[in-house]
Amino acid sequence: MEEFLADLRDWLRIPSVSSDPNAAAEVRRGAEFCAGLLEKAGLDNVRLVEGPGHPLVVGDWLHAEGKPTLLCYGHYDVQPAEPLELWRTPPFEPTLIGGNLYARGAADDKGLAIILIKAVERYLRAGKPLPVNVKFLIEGEEESGGDHVSLYVAEEAASLRCDAALICDTEMFAPELPTICVGLRGIVYGELIVRTGETDLHSGVYGGTVANAVEAAARILARLKDEQGRIAIDGFDADVEPPSAEEQASWRRLPFDEENYRGAEAKVFALVGDPNQSLFARIWARPALEVHGIGGGFTGQGAKTVIPCEAVVKLSARLAAGQDPARAARLLAGAIAAAAPLGARSEFRVLHMAAASVIDPRNALVREAAAAMQEVFGVATVFTRSGGSIPIVGLFQKHLGVGAVLCGFGLPDDNLHAPNEKVYLPNVARGIEAIARYFERLGAL
Amino acid sequence: MEEFLADLRDWLRIPSVSSDPNAAAEVRRGAEFCAGLLEKAGLDNVRLVEGPGHPLVVGDWLHAEGKPTLLCYGHYDVQPAEPLELWRTPPFEPTLIGGNLYARGAADDKGLAIILIKAVERYLRAGKPLPVNVKFLIEGEEESGGDHVSLYVAEEAASLRCDAALICDTEMFAPELPTICVGLRGIVYGELIVRTGETDLHSGVYGGTVANAVEAAARILARLKDEQGRIAIDGFDADVEPPSAEEQASWRRLPFDEENYRGAEAKVFALVGDPNQSLFARIWARPALEVHGIGGGFTGQGAKTVIPCEAVVKLSARLAAGQDPARAARLLAGAIAAAAPLGARSEFRVLHMAAASVIDPRNALVREAAAAMQEVFGVATVFTRSGGSIPIVGLFQKHLGVGAVLCGFGLPDDNLHAPNEKVYLPNVARGIEAIARYFERLGAL
Repeated sequence: MEEFLADLRDWLRIPSVSSDPNAAAEVRRGAEFCAGLLEKAGLDNVRLVEGPGHPLVVGDWLHAEGKPTLLCYGHYDVQPAEPLELWRTPPFEPTLIGGNLYARGAADDKGLAIILIKAVERYLRAGKPLPVNVKFLIEGEEESGGDHVSLYVAEEAASLRCDAALICDTEMFAPELPTICVGLRGIVYGELIVRTGETDLHSGVYGGTVANAVEAAARILARLKDEQGRIAIDGFDADVEPPSAEEQASWRRLPFDEENYRGAEAKVFALVGDPNQSLFARIWARPALEVHGIGGGFTGQGAKTVIPCEAVVKLSARLAAGQDPARAARLLAGAIAAAAPLGARSEFRVLHMAAASVIDPRNALVREAAAAMQEVFGVATVFTRSGGSIPIVGLFQKHLGVGAVLCGFGLPDDNLHAPNEKVYLPNVARGIEAIARYFERLGAL
Repeated sequence: MEEFLADLRDWLRIPSVSSDPNAAAEVRRGAEFCAGLLEKAGLDNVRLVEGPGHPLVVGDWLHAEGKPTLLCYGHYDVQPAEPLELWRTPPFEPTLIGGNLYARGAADDKGLAIILIKAVERYLRAGKPLPVNVKFLIEGEEESGGDHVSLYVAEEAASLRCDAALICDTEMFAPELPTICVGLRGIVYGELIVRTGETDLHSGVYGGTVANAVEAAARILARLKDEQGRIAIDGFDADVEPPSAEEQASWRRLPFDEENYRGAEAKVFALVGDPNQSLFARIWARPALEVHGIGGGFTGQGAKTVIPCEAVVKLSARLAAGQDPARAARLLAGAIAAAAPLGARSEFRVLHMAAASVIDPRNALVREAAAAMQEVFGVATVFTRSGGSIPIVGLFQKHLGVGAVLCGFGLPDDNLHAPNEKVYLPNVARGIEAIARYFERLGAL
C-alpha cells in the first residue's frame, strides 16, 4: 500500500493536461510513467503507441488459456487545473487529508485507473498467474476529445478482441454503495440554422411586415416539446426498450431525495419532464431533447432595433436503449422542418451521433463483478445507468462488439473537472481487492 | 448656386464623426463651420452652445411680428465612413458625378440641413425680411445618441417656443415625388432575462428532468405573436387611432410594388403580418413587436452539451398613434410573465420608450409646405409616415408641444449610413426653392 501510494503520488505530480498544447512534454511524461507502472505490474508487450495526438499506452498478459479476456481501459491525461486560486492545496502536489488524496486527476482517472494496474500487479509480481487474460489500453486524450484512441480501436479491432471492456472511471451512487453502471444514453447532436432573408433589417422600417429569424427559431423550438417538457415528435420514442422490471425495481431502492436533487444538486427552480416516468427513467432510460444554446441578432449593451435574418441553435436528443440514431436524427430533422413558420427556412445539420450502450446486469461478466464488489464492500452492488455517454464505450461496442463493465469507485463529491479534485483512498484499496476477486471469479467460471 | 455648392463641399470635407472619440476636434470644426453658415445667412445670435458632448449651433431671426415661428432643426455630425474600401470616391472629398454629390454626410444631414440655411440666406443676405420667424438648432450628436440636445430642449423650452419644427432629414417616397412624413411610430424597447436555475447543467446528467432557459425563452416569444405575426396580447392595440380615410386613400395611390418590396428591398423569403391590414398600415399605423436578438447557452464551434440556465432577449414594440407607451410596456411585461413556462423566472426591463408622433396633413403648417413643394416639383406632394422614430420629433412634441413638418428631399438610394452616401443636387436646389416658398405662404396666411 505504501508503494502503491508512492506510485500514485508520482503519477499525479505530472501535469498531463492534454488540452494544453504547451503541456505536450508533460503529457508524454504521464504516458511514460504509466508504461512504467504497467511494466512493474508484470504485463507483457508494454509500449507507447504513437499516432495523431498524444501516445497510447498498451500492454497485455494473455496466458490464461480458455479464460475470458478483459480489455482494461483508462486515461492518463487530466483536465486543466484552472482556476488555480480555488484550490486549497496545489493541484499537482498530491496532498493527503483524512482519507482523501487531493490532486488534479486523483479521481479522473489516474487514481481509479491505477486500480486495474495494481490488481494485476498483485498476481504477476508475486509470480502468480492471472486467472484471466488482460489487454491494457490507457489513452491520453480523453479530456481533450482527440481521436487517436478511436482510430486505434478501429484499426486494431482484431488484436483488441476481448469478452468485455473493464473500466474504472465512474462513481458510486452514494458512499459505501458499490455501483456498476450498466447503461449509457446515445445522442444525436446537431445545429439548426434558421434564416428569413438575406440581411438584418431595421425594425422601424420593416417591423410588422417581414419574418424574424429569432422568432421563427423560437417557434420551432417551442413545438419540439410539450408544456411538460416531453418530446412532441410523433413516434420518436417508439423503439425505446424499457429496462427490465428487475432493474427498475432496483432503482426504487436507491437512496434518493428528489427535492435535494432539485434544490441542492441541480439548483433549478423546478423539475420538469414526463410525469408518467420516474426521475431515474427520465435521465437514464428515456430520450431527452435539450437546446444547448441559441444566438441571433443583437444582444450587446443597450438597444439596437434590428430584425435578425439568422438564428443559430445547438440542440441534441439523448437516446435511450433501442433507438436508432439515424432514425432519431431523421425524425428530429423532419419535426424541425415541419415546425418552420411562414417565411423561415431551416437547416438542421447533425454534428455527431451515437447509439445508447446497455449491458444486461444478468450477464455473467457483470454479475461476477457485482458479486466481487459486494464481497469487499459488504453491501449489495447497485446497478445504475448514466444519462450521458462515454464515447469509448460506444467505440468498443461498435468495433469490438463488446459491452463494458463500468465499476464505480469514485464518489459523487470527488470534484471531477473542478478545483479540489480528490479520491477517497479506502475506496481505491477496496477497488483493487474487488477487481482481484473479480479476476478470480471469472477465472473460475 | 456656385457659392452654395462650395459651402456644402467645404462642410462635407470635415469628418465630424460624432461617435469617434478621436474625432472630437473635427466635430467641433463641423460645428464652427455650421455657425459660419448661419452667420453668413444673416441670422442673429449665432453661437455654439457648450454642454455635455458635442456643441449645439443656434441662431435666430425673430423680426416677423405676428407671423409663425419655425424651429429649424438639423445635425452637423455624420456616421463613420467605414468600411472605407467600399467607397468608390474618398468619403471626405466630395465628388460630383452626374447630378449626385458623393460624400459621408451628403444626405444625412449636411446636404439637406443646408437647404434650411440657404433658404433663409436668400432673404436676409439680399436685405429682404423673412416672411416668418425662425430659430435654428443644429446638433452634433444625432448619429451617436448623445443627450446634449435633449437636455437643451428640456431646459430651454421657453426660449425655443415655436409653432412647428421644420426638419429636412427624411427622403422622398420615390424620385420626383415630393414627400412629407406626417407620422412616426413610438417604441417600448426592453430586455427580457429568463432564468431556470443557478448554473448551467450537463445535459447527459440532467437532460429530461430540469427546465431549460433557452427553451423557456423560446416558449415565451412564441406566445407573444400568432402564426401570422400579429401581436397576441389582449387589448394591446385597443387605443390605436387609425389614420384618416383621406390619408389611407392617399397611401393606395403611392407607387409601390409589394413583390419588389419583399424581394429586392427587404430581401426576405416572405411578408408576414396582419392580413387585415395593408402593408403601409402594418408599417406606419399599427403596432409591431419584433425580437432584436437572443443569446443563451453555448453557440461556439462544435458541440457542448450544456443545459443553459439563462437566456437574454432584446425586443421592442413599435407603437402606433394613440398608444400610451407606459400602458404598452405594462401589457407587454404582463404577457411575458404570463407566458413563462414551468420552472422559468422571467424579468422584463424597459430600456426606453417614446410615444408615436403624428401631425394631421390638414394642419395649415403641413398643408402650406405640401403646396410649396408641389409648386416646385410640379406634382402633388404625398404624405407618408415612418415606421421608426426620430427622437428629436418626440422631444419637440414633449417639451415644446409642437409637431414637426418633415420635408423629404433625400432619395431612397442615397446610401445613408453606408458607403457611397450621396445627395441628388437638383433636389437640394428644389428644396431651397420649396422652403423659401413655404416661408412666403406661411407669411401670407
